[in-house]
Amino acid sequence: MPQLAQQTEKLLRRLVRRDASNAIRKLLAKTRPEDVAAAMEHLTWAEQRRLHGLFDDVEYKAAVVANLSEESILHVLEGETEASVVDLLDHMEPDDATDVVEILPDELRSRVISQLGDDDAEGVRELLEWPSDSAGGIMSPLVFKMPQTATTGQAIAELQREHENFESVHYLYLVDSQERLVGVTSLRSLLTHSADTPLVAFMTRDVIQVGPRTDQEEVARFVARYDLLAVPVVDNTGCMLGIVTVDDVLDVIRDEAAEDMMLMAGVSDGLPSGGALNQALRRAGWLMATTIGGILMAEIIGVYKATLETVAVLAGFIPVIMGMGGNVGIQSATVAVRGLATGHVQIGGAGRFVFREAQVGVLLGVLFAILLGTYGSVRFGMWIGLSVALSVALSISAASIIGGAIPVALGRAGADPAIATGPFVTTAVDILAILIYFNIARTLLGL
Amino acid sequence: MPQLAQQTEKLLRRLVRRDASNAIRKLLAKTRPEDVAAAMEHLTWAEQRRLHGLFDDVEYKAAVVANLSEESILHVLEGETEASVVDLLDHMEPDDATDVVEILPDELRSRVISQLGDDDAEGVRELLEWPSDSAGGIMSPLVFKMPQTATTGQAIAELQREHENFESVHYLYLVDSQERLVGVTSLRSLLTHSADTPLVAFMTRDVIQVGPRTDQEEVARFVARYDLLAVPVVDNTGCMLGIVTVDDVLDVIRDEAAEDMMLMAGVSDGLPSGGALNQALRRAGWLMATTIGGILMAEIIGVYKATLETVAVLAGFIPVIMGMGGNVGIQSATVAVRGLATGHVQIGGAGRFVFREAQVGVLLGVLFAILLGTYGSVRFGMWIGLSVALSVALSISAASIIGGAIPVALGRAGADPAIATGPFVTTAVDILAILIYFNIARTLLGL
Repeated sequence: MPQLAQQTEKLLRRLVRRDASNAIRKLLAKTRPEDVAAAMEHLTWAEQRRLHGLFDDVEYKAAVVANLSEESILHVLEGETEASVVDLLDHMEPDDATDVVEILPDELRSRVISQLGDDDAEGVRELLEWPSDSAGGIMSPLVFKMPQTATTGQAIAELQREHENFESVHYLYLVDSQERLVGVTSLRSLLTHSADTPLVAFMTRDVIQVGPRTDQEEVARFVARYDLLAVPVVDNTGCMLGIVTVDDVLDVIRDEAAEDMMLMAGVSDGLPSGGALNQALRRAGWLMATTIGGILMAEIIGVYKATLETVAVLAGFIPVIMGMGGNVGIQSATVAVRGLATGHVQIGGAGRFVFREAQVGVLLGVLFAILLGTYGSVRFGMWIGLSVALSVALSISAASIIGGAIPVALGRAGADPAIATGPFVTTAVDILAILIYFNIARTLLGL
Repeated sequence: MPQLAQQTEKLLRRLVRRDASNAIRKLLAKTRPEDVAAAMEHLTWAEQRRLHGLFDDVEYKAAVVANLSEESILHVLEGETEASVVDLLDHMEPDDATDVVEILPDELRSRVISQLGDDDAEGVRELLEWPSDSAGGIMSPLVFKMPQTATTGQAIAELQREHENFESVHYLYLVDSQERLVGVTSLRSLLTHSADTPLVAFMTRDVIQVGPRTDQEEVARFVARYDLLAVPVVDNTGCMLGIVTVDDVLDVIRDEAAEDMMLMAGVSDGLPSGGALNQALRRAGWLMATTIGGILMAEIIGVYKATLETVAVLAGFIPVIMGMGGNVGIQSATVAVRGLATGHVQIGGAGRFVFREAQVGVLLGVLFAILLGTYGSVRFGMWIGLSVALSVALSISAASIIGGAIPVALGRAGADPAIATGPFVTTAVDILAILIYFNIARTLLGL
């Protein structure tokens, strides 16, 4: 089956390139919109727009668009009239529609909202109130809820009446007369209790819940920890605003992990879409930091020009001194970032973590000082070996402390700890390592 | 609520350190086992064992253990008798029990399996047949299924009879007389159809399914793409073996992302648990690669000793030449690895991706050649500037191609593409960059 979907994707791409409209329509009739969306991401913008124009059914079109990347959405909607964008949004779930509305150009956005059907517009406006990376921003306002006085039979009747509106019912929530959340139960429980049993008799009162401003990563941690299918979003008066469902949490976890990795490699927002120039510009920022760091290094090494003219082999150890410092720093920073993301390291109790990283650094420093020092001594003489050994030990120890502490400090300051895996920490550690190295070498070699 | 859980965790840690057994028992009575497990990960092995000894209820104990990391599980079970391990496993879901059984020492494992209750032992043995990172390895064999001839009322009766056995019912699967999967329907559909409606009347026949050997990352991609709560695992005769549920998929996505990031930073299997020596050893492998690369660099730079003695400032550009090449290589590799993981890049159609990366590399190469060449010319003369510019342009272009192509090649060879973000690609790119640099400089400077 996975194999099959991949083959369909390939075929679809070939057909679009050949502009074979009839064959495409036939293929679409038996292909899931999710697969079409995945295949579309591999097409050029022009091809994407052409394929988008071939969707005859607006339901299908809406399902494809809801599964596209933000960039692709903008490109395929470019050719659409305002009315057809509105029609498309009317066929989406409110949370998907909100995601689309959010990325529309400012002026188009307000015009589109004003034209949405009443229910939809209200839903979208409510969701837009909250930051897009908070529980409120990713929640779905369509919730299956009942007054706490209802019976099992009444709940089943309500579900039968309204089942069109609840595309994915995960739980049944119970609210009091002020719409405050008081309990939750599963659909299965409705099936295993008699119609006249009051819902309060078997509801769970201790409901795991989040606030509308809870960060989406925090929401994801809760859903993952307690194996939930959905978590209710409740404001500070206790009123239920919506639910965040597990499928949205899956997307959050994937996106946040990708974001962390891309930040780590200095590719901002870097899914492999868009043209080459676009991609180059996205990566240039980080390389600019490397360039500035590199120029700084050239200046610093320039200071030791006389030393290098006398003992040119010292230059040979520049790569390894920098590499060890940088890598140890990145290792500590990565462990800290992942630890903070998964909750294994907590910002409040991070002192113990940084201390452990320092211990790791000293152990690694001593180990590699012995290795590289031995090599240096045997190859270029005792004093060069000793200079290398001392520099390696010191710079590795320093790097592990800096790498472990900076993500924690960023987290405390309310910033994204993952920034620490970017070029700034590496550059700082590199410069420190080179300063340590040349100063130790000059002293030991008497230069 | 998230705040509350964190406070409970802190309190628990404090109490365990103070060895306040009574206060701990009181706290446990009102704390979810998932939170206790999370708090335990922050304790030392000795403290974990002490806390583990305080769980009076075996259900609770099993729920905590099922949520611990592999390392912690091994440590807390160390003090347990064989009989109590068996008792613990009997109180877990088969997939959780299998995860525990899998990490037990070989000899203990077979003794434990032989003592498990008949049903449990069979479930565990079936799961152990499949690789632990495949659909078969993470599936749950407990499935709510009915013969395709059944009616809605019969399905509801079955659910009422067996509801203890299905902790989390996501869908109802329909099978033919040979246990082959023929359709699926939701619990909600049971509530919205009359008791005498046959299930075939409203079941979905086109069931998204995976094979028992499907890689868990592939399973995760499917569950995420189609927003499923569970996906059936079906063998090649069409028989249903079990389901992979979305909560297990969440864990897969988190673990795989963490694994990729850790691989990227050279921290093998690096959750921040275990002692400092343990951690140091885990990171030493990657640093060993850096050391060997560094020694190679020292040897290569040693070849150009005479050049450096004459023009010592050339040494100053070693860091930036290496840094730019390495970073561009890592960027391309990361985009490739994430693209392959999310399905944005496909192994079959990767030629276009590598070509795009090459274009990106040339663009970045030209941009930074101009920048660094200008700096070099102004600061150290035209020929040095020109050497730097040419080296930067060439090494960045080469790095982007190598970085983009190697993950694809690894994927084709059946290896984990994420290895490419480790030290081997960086070291290869570094060496190439330095060779390019010194040879261009020697030629242009006439040395």
